[in-house]
Amino acid sequence: MSAALAAGSASAQNTEGGLFQIVKPAANVNLGKSELGKKLYFDPRLSKSGFISCNSCHNLSMGGSDNLPTSIGDKWQQGPINSPTVLNSSMNLAQFWDGRAADLKEQAGGPIANPGEMAFTHTLAIGVIESIPAYAREFKTVFGKDKITIDQVTEAIAEFEKTLVTPNSRFDQWLLGNKEAMTPKELAGLKLFQDSGCVACHNGPALGGNSFQKMGVVAPYKTKGGAEGRSAVTGQEVDRFNFKVPTLRNVELTYPYFHDGAANTLSEAVDVMGRLQLGKNFTKDENTKIVAFLKTLTGDQPLFRLPILPPSSDKTPRPTPFSK
Amino acid sequence: MSAALAAGSASAQNTEGGLFQIVKPAANVNLGKSELGKKLYFDPRLSKSGFISCNSCHNLSMGGSDNLPTSIGDKWQQGPINSPTVLNSSMNLAQFWDGRAADLKEQAGGPIANPGEMAFTHTLAIGVIESIPAYAREFKTVFGKDKITIDQVTEAIAEFEKTLVTPNSRFDQWLLGNKEAMTPKELAGLKLFQDSGCVACHNGPALGGNSFQKMGVVAPYKTKGGAEGRSAVTGQEVDRFNFKVPTLRNVELTYPYFHDGAANTLSEAVDVMGRLQLGKNFTKDENTKIVAFLKTLTGDQPLFRLPILPPSSDKTPRPTPFSK
Repeated sequence: MSAALAAGSASAQNTEGGLFQIVKPAANVNLGKSELGKKLYFDPRLSKSGFISCNSCHNLSMGGSDNLPTSIGDKWQQGPINSPTVLNSSMNLAQFWDGRAADLKEQAGGPIANPGEMAFTHTLAIGVIESIPAYAREFKTVFGKDKITIDQVTEAIAEFEKTLVTPNSRFDQWLLGNKEAMTPKELAGLKLFQDSGCVACHNGPALGGNSFQKMGVVAPYKTKGGAEGRSAVTGQEVDRFNFKVPTLRNVELTYPYFHDGAANTLSEAVDVMGRLQLGKNFTKDENTKIVAFLKTLTGDQPLFRLPILPPSSDKTPRPTPFSK
Repeated sequence: MSAALAAGSASAQNTEGGLFQIVKPAANVNLGKSELGKKLYFDPRLSKSGFISCNSCHNLSMGGSDNLPTSIGDKWQQGPINSPTVLNSSMNLAQFWDGRAADLKEQAGGPIANPGEMAFTHTLAIGVIESIPAYAREFKTVFGKDKITIDQVTEAIAEFEKTLVTPNSRFDQWLLGNKEAMTPKELAGLKLFQDSGCVACHNGPALGGNSFQKMGVVAPYKTKGGAEGRSAVTGQEVDRFNFKVPTLRNVELTYPYFHDGAANTLSEAVDVMGRLQLGKNFTKDENTKIVAFLKTLTGDQPLFRLPILPPSSDKTPRPTPFSK
């Protein structure tokens, strides 16, 4: 905990040493790469079925999530875990709930080849992309190579995802000094958020995403989900049920909550977190105030034109949604 | 057949009496209604699963279609028929392959309540929409009524779909007098298209969409698909295997072809149409020319910002993708 947290002050400032920082617009973006990545992000031809794209489960109309407890994969398979928002995910210390991917580039390759998600292979995906003349030209323009590789595909997608930040939330306006940007009730919620200890894990520019923590510190979390968390990556028993702390940015849009998507509402999520992580029973009034604060974390959503995808050629392998 | 067709001339003009007309930009659009309709078009909460929206099968990144032989519905059910493009569908004499909906408004209600598609009910869809505060406000702004109805929902979606026209194709530029807009090869294809009789069904601004015709006039069409066509609507045996003639606008983008999606390429589609509808075996050279002409029918795709959907409230019924 930082000194500012210990002081329990609601006057969090946007300083390097502060608890919170504003979300900044994306910088150093390679536009050619990110525009190509945007197309790939929306392209269901990266899946076996031709039906599932990155945007299916990280829907940019819906807070970068699918608003389902766990996602729907190839052949309607039920996913094992809640789809985390792609918004501001560039700030995460690692990707996936268990942090098994170091960064966005590594993450992007996962779902394409996961039999329970897009159910394709990297080789087949490259075969599809290579066969689409306008993609072939665009990859050559962007990467300057004759051969298209999965590394280029994931690099482009990651570059697009780098642009998916949500600055200018009311909380950020407040951090920047506009004291009218938050209501007294919301500020009371922020004070509770800090004084109660929520901020111990939910801090930094994303209010989360920067540490792994145990789900169920004070009391065990009961779930029907089978995800074991960080121990699946480290093999260490001590990491069992440790998950990446989710960002609270845009949390109003990213219901349902927790790695198993079991909490339908923010009110429920705050209640469970208070009891299981902090040993606190928030009163109804306290709960309402914290929820009000959390809703100030909704930033400007990424606005861009729906990409038009280049058509397949006669040589493009066709999707096989109904075959084994 | 019109006089111009009989004359077999490639100098088709954009006149009232001509074979072809250009695609015009949408006019008389109620912007409030169409912006609301755009959100609804992209909103998977109109489906039981919370996963399937209008855009899932009529994907505006992909020529307004899903580029699958037949579509994927709730629980990965295989649809019975190819998803027709939504682009320029306002020009159709009726909607669906069998014309069972009179217009776009009537069409829009179909998939929502179809157990094999979005698998919801109109009542449940309205319940979801009513529970979303920003939707409730927007419906009130647009329609001026306190109560939201399915009629308003389908009217808004239809208004958005009215905007999904694709003017400015090279063919249209040529029709408007720019003789450089098409190559000699493409013009030769147009002449073949007219002289061979394709134009008997594929005429008007959409080059189709304005009549029902039998699939397999000269020789029977063999298909694994079970769709019986127009007779399902009229109950008349004479209408069996009559389907709405699909538009050829943007046909380069709307593969695979035919009501069963059995033709993977334009070349194959032209070949089958020649043999079965016209009793003609196009040579490879003729086929190539006609395909070249067809590719001049790709117009400007609708460009707009991906809509940001209003979040559900605590009271919004949650999707049930995995329950019966």
